[in-house]
Amino acid sequence: MTDEAARLESVWRHAASSRFVTGWSAGELALRLAAGSDANDDCAILDVDGSGALVIGSDYIRGVKFTLFELGHLGFEDLGWYLAMANFSDVAAMGASPVGLLTVIRYPREMAEGDFAEVLAGIAEACQAIGASPLGGDVGSAERLFLSGTAFGICERDRVLRRSGARAGDLLILTGTVGTAAAALVYFDHCKSNGDQLRHELEDELLQSWRRPIARVTEGRMLAKQGAHACQDVSDGLRDTVEQLCRASGVGCRVAADSLPIENSVRAVADLAGLDPFALALSASVDFELAAAIAPEDLDTCRESFEAAGVDLHPVGEFTAEQDLVLLSENGEGPLPGTSWDHMTDDPAAATVKATRRP
Amino acid sequence: MTDEAARLESVWRHAASSRFVTGWSAGELALRLAAGSDANDDCAILDVDGSGALVIGSDYIRGVKFTLFELGHLGFEDLGWYLAMANFSDVAAMGASPVGLLTVIRYPREMAEGDFAEVLAGIAEACQAIGASPLGGDVGSAERLFLSGTAFGICERDRVLRRSGARAGDLLILTGTVGTAAAALVYFDHCKSNGDQLRHELEDELLQSWRRPIARVTEGRMLAKQGAHACQDVSDGLRDTVEQLCRASGVGCRVAADSLPIENSVRAVADLAGLDPFALALSASVDFELAAAIAPEDLDTCRESFEAAGVDLHPVGEFTAEQDLVLLSENGEGPLPGTSWDHMTDDPAAATVKATRRP
Repeated sequence: MTDEAARLESVWRHAASSRFVTGWSAGELALRLAAGSDANDDCAILDVDGSGALVIGSDYIRGVKFTLFELGHLGFEDLGWYLAMANFSDVAAMGASPVGLLTVIRYPREMAEGDFAEVLAGIAEACQAIGASPLGGDVGSAERLFLSGTAFGICERDRVLRRSGARAGDLLILTGTVGTAAAALVYFDHCKSNGDQLRHELEDELLQSWRRPIARVTEGRMLAKQGAHACQDVSDGLRDTVEQLCRASGVGCRVAADSLPIENSVRAVADLAGLDPFALALSASVDFELAAAIAPEDLDTCRESFEAAGVDLHPVGEFTAEQDLVLLSENGEGPLPGTSWDHMTDDPAAATVKATRRP
Repeated sequence: MTDEAARLESVWRHAASSRFVTGWSAGELALRLAAGSDANDDCAILDVDGSGALVIGSDYIRGVKFTLFELGHLGFEDLGWYLAMANFSDVAAMGASPVGLLTVIRYPREMAEGDFAEVLAGIAEACQAIGASPLGGDVGSAERLFLSGTAFGICERDRVLRRSGARAGDLLILTGTVGTAAAALVYFDHCKSNGDQLRHELEDELLQSWRRPIARVTEGRMLAKQGAHACQDVSDGLRDTVEQLCRASGVGCRVAADSLPIENSVRAVADLAGLDPFALALSASVDFELAAAIAPEDLDTCRESFEAAGVDLHPVGEFTAEQDLVLLSENGEGPLPGTSWDHMTDDPAAATVKATRRP
């Protein structure tokens, strides 16, 4: 366990041990705590009366400390959009329908009015795209631009998706491609300074993962309605998500390398940088796709409903009773490669290159 | 309007204009937006089914940039407590019962494990004191300790307290003393460096306003049940709050200087620094008391219920049809003195001294 992970565990343990209250009421309205911070899901869950559940979660984003912002590839509107979507992604991962977003926007004295307005525009556009309302929050000064948010949503009674619940025999499915956000960092912060150059449309594909990520709300809602057994977004990388789903559920997982959906741009970056594309796809890549466990007999129904909605579903592995994380590739069986997002690193591109270099 | 206020207005206007959705449902659970960011209340309001309302708000705190933290008078546990209470105060101001708190805790690599644990302990203690649950949120690294939070609570149907609603003839009431937080800054950052020294118990009284502020939940709940017309916390100073209540309600206010509840320590600091105690009590002082508008005929009932609960109620003024802000003192009538909290200032003590110096 990393130092960071140890701290996190301590937070949850502490918060759990201090959870003194689990029910509230005001007149006819009653809330009951269904899953607090110790449950370690993407959001906390509160049951409302007998009618449904409220889910709520908070996320900070690095914002101006994003490598791609520092390199000039992201603007202030992109930061606003990203802040909103990172928060909605946690709501989507619970199978809930996003309702509102509160934001904390602390900005430096010297920030231009236009840049500030762009942050707000990005937040508003992302809310509109997702069908949620921006609900204000906190605005004030600080020494640099700090952005954090809180998103909440609602879900049908007993349909909220958790990390625990995956069963041996379940299929691991993904709602989209993985590795693009990590490949973007490697390309723009590493390959380009070495003189490498990709075609314009491949560069665009890479940048899009940072400029206009999309929280997978439609997909999460369908997974909740279809009774998926477990779900999480891959915002710390697919390997990390698989590991957390398995740990929470007491199972293992076998991932089929060939079935991993990987963009051409990611394969191109892997070629340029001498990286293993599967390791890159499984590593610390903030892609905001959902990874879910579904019963194999539900695959056809899921596929049909996803197809009807025009969204993607990729079966990429199987959960197992043996608690190992395995990659099946043309080289046979091996441990699942890849590295988790390290919240402490100052140089995510270098960390990814180091962790995913071709043997 | 200050630059800061102009920015705020622009945020709310923008958020309001981009509010595309006002109703959500998932199965039997339905939420309806009752007041978004354009309403400019302490929290956003969402009606739940027909049964009640959910209120939710976010606050960032300066934390390690608090003058009293920099001077060594606050510890990490105090910051955790403050973060939670600042957020619960917004819920209390709506007349709601706090349910949960989400926190964003970003800390520097070099932060000692013990200091980090103290922040968590402070958050947990404050949640316990208020009857709410800490619900996790976000933990990770940044260049310094950053703290923000989101608190939410529930209230009976149609009982949520807003800033608008005060009527001419209503009484302005306060739930406790004002000016202490500002006086603490002036004393520790200004008087002490000039060689002034107060008695130990007066120093303690001043520090307590920063170390263990209390969100006025009991008071807010009683005001909601008694049908107060308007309410807000005084976290930007009493003058600022009165101004905002009046602006939202289209009324004015006459405050009686003699009736303002002011601690002995605040009067002592005013003496030491040559400040007007009333201006100090009305200025940028983050006191977390509630200021509310109640009908004069409800005063006795309110007084009895407050007394029965062992909490304070101070009538300090009257709302008027004339839209002026007036202070009645032994010198007669004058404009309401005091300065609002300036989110941009690096030196709040100096700003307060400058604004409240005795003529």
